[in-house]
Amino acid sequence: MTAPVFTADARLAERIFAEAAEAGRDAPGISRESFGPGEEKALRAIERIATENGLFCEFDAYRNLWMRLPEDARAEPPVVIGSHLDSVPHGGNFDGLAGVAAAAMVLARFRGRAHEAPPLRALALRGEESAWYGKAYIGSLALLGLLPQSALALPHRDGHGTLGEAMARLGIDTAAIAAGKPLIGKDDVAAYLELHIEQGPVMVARGWPLALVTGIRGNLRHTTVHCIGEAGHSGAVPRWLRKDAVLATADLLSRMDEHWRVLLQMGMDLVMTAGICTTPPESHAVSVIPGETRFSLEIRSQDAATMQRFYELTREECRAVEKARGVSFVFDDRIDTAPAVMDAAWMARLDAAAGRVGMPLERTPSGAGHDAAVFANAGIPSAMVFVRNAHGSHNPREAMEIADFLLGVDLLTEAVRTL
Amino acid sequence: MTAPVFTADARLAERIFAEAAEAGRDAPGISRESFGPGEEKALRAIERIATENGLFCEFDAYRNLWMRLPEDARAEPPVVIGSHLDSVPHGGNFDGLAGVAAAAMVLARFRGRAHEAPPLRALALRGEESAWYGKAYIGSLALLGLLPQSALALPHRDGHGTLGEAMARLGIDTAAIAAGKPLIGKDDVAAYLELHIEQGPVMVARGWPLALVTGIRGNLRHTTVHCIGEAGHSGAVPRWLRKDAVLATADLLSRMDEHWRVLLQMGMDLVMTAGICTTPPESHAVSVIPGETRFSLEIRSQDAATMQRFYELTREECRAVEKARGVSFVFDDRIDTAPAVMDAAWMARLDAAAGRVGMPLERTPSGAGHDAAVFANAGIPSAMVFVRNAHGSHNPREAMEIADFLLGVDLLTEAVRTL
Repeated sequence: MTAPVFTADARLAERIFAEAAEAGRDAPGISRESFGPGEEKALRAIERIATENGLFCEFDAYRNLWMRLPEDARAEPPVVIGSHLDSVPHGGNFDGLAGVAAAAMVLARFRGRAHEAPPLRALALRGEESAWYGKAYIGSLALLGLLPQSALALPHRDGHGTLGEAMARLGIDTAAIAAGKPLIGKDDVAAYLELHIEQGPVMVARGWPLALVTGIRGNLRHTTVHCIGEAGHSGAVPRWLRKDAVLATADLLSRMDEHWRVLLQMGMDLVMTAGICTTPPESHAVSVIPGETRFSLEIRSQDAATMQRFYELTREECRAVEKARGVSFVFDDRIDTAPAVMDAAWMARLDAAAGRVGMPLERTPSGAGHDAAVFANAGIPSAMVFVRNAHGSHNPREAMEIADFLLGVDLLTEAVRTL
Repeated sequence: MTAPVFTADARLAERIFAEAAEAGRDAPGISRESFGPGEEKALRAIERIATENGLFCEFDAYRNLWMRLPEDARAEPPVVIGSHLDSVPHGGNFDGLAGVAAAAMVLARFRGRAHEAPPLRALALRGEESAWYGKAYIGSLALLGLLPQSALALPHRDGHGTLGEAMARLGIDTAAIAAGKPLIGKDDVAAYLELHIEQGPVMVARGWPLALVTGIRGNLRHTTVHCIGEAGHSGAVPRWLRKDAVLATADLLSRMDEHWRVLLQMGMDLVMTAGICTTPPESHAVSVIPGETRFSLEIRSQDAATMQRFYELTREECRAVEKARGVSFVFDDRIDTAPAVMDAAWMARLDAAAGRVGMPLERTPSGAGHDAAVFANAGIPSAMVFVRNAHGSHNPREAMEIADFLLGVDLLTEAVRTL
């Protein structure tokens, strides 16, 4: 006998997604602004539904929402399951919210059976998306006392008001945040678990409803690399006297792309992107040898050493191209974000849980950043589960199946169950 | 005994260049607008100097200036030596003018000795530069009845007035031009010879004061090739699921660049330029896999078959890159300009003349277009001599040495002399 499509669990999940969507509806898609009204309304909706489902809810001093079983008064550090509630402007309904919904539903499954699990908390974080104030992980960084004071002065994307002002409007004690006062430390949390939709196409392509995240890629960026050659008459300058910036850039990127292909074949975790690449609009022309290009460069990996070595290889190839083609590459400031390693014991535990419920659980790195990286890099054992999702994230076409989501809730429930 | 630096010839050349520069002075540089006042004043200056030096001057119905020896009344088709008098906006003094000055000076050398040369004419053409009305070779095309009627409606670069209006202001019969009425046909001209500054850096690099032009490259252009891939999260999409338009474009251009290198090694005449190459400014970002690029493509060669074959190779490599990388390349309309072959007999004659005066004469193709290509493609035996010039052309830094120029006058004089 197959399970009915609309179990009580499915109805609860549908309700959470519907009410949180309503809270942030902003056609096309969903806008739950970090520390703004859509996010606040969604938090209130979650609070209401959780309370109706027998959970105890409270906001911390930085206005994150915590949920627990009312009967669970144990003092030891809890396992925290959470994610964020904000979205990008005109984004989808599942990026962030799915993890919060899963956390609440796992908790609800232990109603009246708190002793079957370690102390558990469900956490709805705020302000994970960088789209609103140009900074990501605001809620988790503040919670751990790690948000730089300078972040409070970051302007809103529309140019009006700052992050600090938005927080103050919610009654948050920004002086405490500015002082770097943590609300929790690493010894207050046994583990941090997060369910999140996959933001890439791998799981759909592979046919995996769930996947275990092995690590969260860090990144290394140059916003602008300036390739400087020499402009000239496209007909009158022969190849040996050219300093063609487009062909030099193409040569460099093709060399790096080929190294990338080989390194993947050798099992390394790596992605490379030159998302921006342009000749100067004010002077480029069909019949002028391009004298310059500007391009961005981003390298991501779960492994900091791989990123650094690939970066050094890039600089080495730049020198080779400079020598071969008479151009020069000028790099702006390098920006680094450290990768995060997921906890081996919790990964084993999730693997074992998947085995017990007869669920295949493939492994994948997370290319995008997540709050789990903040917890992991603060020394808290952290793990993540991805749910299959079509069309990527940060757009209204995000598409997660409720059946896949419920498999994720099942997996987390089984993983935290005391054996 | 070395020759004095300031011979009568050098003084005459200096005077022509100084007075024509004065006529078009427009800091920085020189502006002798096609069918405009600077060009007209320069023509008047040439007419005045030529007359003072014993030449007979007359304007044809399309206001080109013709010069001849007054005593030369022979009826056979003459050898015409010429070039253009207009410049680009804020250009240099030598592009065009050098050839007109040389023509007048060769003619002057036969004063009282007309029988030592075939019938000769010096010709100062108008409107060679495309910078003013978006069309090149206006003067020579009109002279041969080849200017399309539509060209008369071309707007001036500043948006005010048309080519036809500018011609009418000079008293030119634009109805005759519109009707395609030639002032001369191929049977009226024995040969067309043109001296011009080199617009590239080859002769300076090689140390050649003069060079014999072997042919004038044609070109094959696409203003825009659109490479269409798929945008995506730069962290979350692995290499095997990407459709990265920048890496696809880099791959294509690197393949073609490598083919180009090999074909040059095999002795072919070829240049390739992607002068414009951009990701879309409205949507590109450091952390987004580039979903599209737009680039221009220009192929030039003296040999039409080489251009066509390299073009077919380009399209074939596009198909290979499309298949390998999941992108597509969409080409706009192809624009063709035929190459021109220089006359073998006149090239041999110039070679022989160089040998007689003990002057080395290397060979080089002309990458840029010239009026000589119009004459050659109209069936008139044509030949060109390049004079060494630093810093390229179409800019105020054009730098031709008068000593090199006078070698060119010597060479042309020797080449037309009846043996």
